[in-house]
Amino acid sequence: MENQRPLILISNDDGIVAKGISELIKFLRPLGEIVVMAPNAPRSGSSAALTVTEPIHYQLVRKDVGLSVYKCSGTPVDCVKLAFHTVLDRTPDLVVCGVNHGDNSGVNVHFSGTMGGVIEGCLKGVPSIGFSLCSHEPNADFDPSGPYIRNIARLVLEKGLPPLTCLNVNFPVAKEMKGIKICEQSKGDWINEWESFAHRGNSHYYWLSGEFRDVDSENEKNDHWALENGYVAITPIKVDVTDYGFIDELQTWF
Amino acid sequence: MENQRPLILISNDDGIVAKGISELIKFLRPLGEIVVMAPNAPRSGSSAALTVTEPIHYQLVRKDVGLSVYKCSGTPVDCVKLAFHTVLDRTPDLVVCGVNHGDNSGVNVHFSGTMGGVIEGCLKGVPSIGFSLCSHEPNADFDPSGPYIRNIARLVLEKGLPPLTCLNVNFPVAKEMKGIKICEQSKGDWINEWESFAHRGNSHYYWLSGEFRDVDSENEKNDHWALENGYVAITPIKVDVTDYGFIDELQTWF
Repeated sequence: MENQRPLILISNDDGIVAKGISELIKFLRPLGEIVVMAPNAPRSGSSAALTVTEPIHYQLVRKDVGLSVYKCSGTPVDCVKLAFHTVLDRTPDLVVCGVNHGDNSGVNVHFSGTMGGVIEGCLKGVPSIGFSLCSHEPNADFDPSGPYIRNIARLVLEKGLPPLTCLNVNFPVAKEMKGIKICEQSKGDWINEWESFAHRGNSHYYWLSGEFRDVDSENEKNDHWALENGYVAITPIKVDVTDYGFIDELQTWF
Repeated sequence: MENQRPLILISNDDGIVAKGISELIKFLRPLGEIVVMAPNAPRSGSSAALTVTEPIHYQLVRKDVGLSVYKCSGTPVDCVKLAFHTVLDRTPDLVVCGVNHGDNSGVNVHFSGTMGGVIEGCLKGVPSIGFSLCSHEPNADFDPSGPYIRNIARLVLEKGLPPLTCLNVNFPVAKEMKGIKICEQSKGDWINEWESFAHRGNSHYYWLSGEFRDVDSENEKNDHWALENGYVAITPIKVDVTDYGFIDELQTWF
C-alpha cells in the first residue's frame, strides 16, 4: 500500500460526454489514479437529488492506465454513492465534480448537481471540490482554468479540508484571470424566473429562466463580485448547515 | 390591505395526493389564507432540484374559501418558484412544506425535496418551515403532530425568522411526544446504501437503500437523538452555507 498514488473520484452533472469533465480528467491525471462515475445524460440543476423510485445502473465506458470511466443512470449524488459502493477499491483521497458548464456561485450552490456530488463526497469524509466555469457553451475554453484546477486539487490533497467543509470554485470566462479570491456566498436571488410557454386546456406551461439579482453587489467578498471582476472565486462551503447562532434565541420560544 | 389574514404557501415532495399535505392544510387553515402548489406525483429525494430541460405546467385542482390548491409537474423548488410567479397575488407570510412521510433530520436535510422547497422559500426572503414525520407509512397518524405544527407556524408568523435561516422540524412516531428540543444537525452518514438488484449484459442495477449511522449518537443536542428519545426536533438551518471560519486559513494557501 506504500507509495500509492492518490485516488481521485470524478463526477459532474452535465453528463459523461460534456467537454468540462473531459478537460477535468485531463487536468487531474498527472496528480493520481482517476476513477470517473458520471451521469449518462445531463443532470443540470439536480442539486443533491437521489434516485429513489427506480433502480439505477452503471457501465464501464473506458479503461486505461490509471483511468477508469463509468457512466451511470443516476444523479451526481447517486454516482458518488454508487462509486464508493462498487468501483472504488479504497476510499478516495479526493472527490472532484465538474468542470461545470455554468456559474455555480452564490445561491446556485443549492441547485447545482455539481455541488450535490461535492456535498456527498464531503459527507463521506473525503476532501471534495466543485469546479465550474461561467459559460454554458458546450465548446467553452477550459484551458485558462487548467493550471488553477491542478494547483487547487494538489493543495487540497496535501493539506486536506476541515471535516464537513468542501470547496466551490468558479472561474470567470477570461483568457487571463486576475488570480484567486477566497469568497463568501453572494446574497441575492433569482428574478424573472419563468417564461410563459404555452397554454393547453387548463394547463399553463412555463420554462425556467431568470437572472441573478445580487443584493450586495459592491461587496468585494462576494463570489459573484470576484467573478464579475475577473478573479477565480473559491467559496468554502459547510455541509453542517445548522444555524448555531439562532439556537439560543429559539430556545426561548418554547 | 388592513386586517388581511396571513398568506401561507404550502408545498411538499410526496405529491399532492399524499396524506401528509392534506393534514398540513387542515392544521394550518385556522391561521390564514392557504395557497397550495404541490407536485403532481412523488418527488422524494429531489433536494433543491430544478427542472431545466423541459417546461413545467400547473393546474387548479380545488378552490374554496381561503384555500386554493394547484398541482404542478415540477419539483418542490419549481412549485415554490412558480407559485410566487403565477398564483400568489402578494408575497406570502410563510412558506411551509410537508408534512413529509419520512425523517428529514441530520444529513437528510441535503437530500430532502421537502427541505428543498423550504430553502427556496427562505431564499425568497419569506420565513419558511419544513415538517416531517419519521414514518414512511402512506396512512401514518399525523394527529399528534397537529398542535405542534399549528403552534410553531403561529410563532414564526408572529416573530419571523432571521434572514437566510429556516426551520427543519421532525416528529417522532408517538401518540404523546415529550415536548420540543432545539437541535443541531446530527453528524453521520448513510451506510449499506445499495441493494444489488440485477445484471443485464454489461449493466449493473442497484436500488438505493441504506441505514443512517449517527457518529455522535450520545449527543443530546442532535436532532437524531431527540427523535429517538420521543422529542419533537427543531433544527434551525442556514441557507448561507459559507464556511466563514475557514476563510482566513484558506487565504494563507495562495
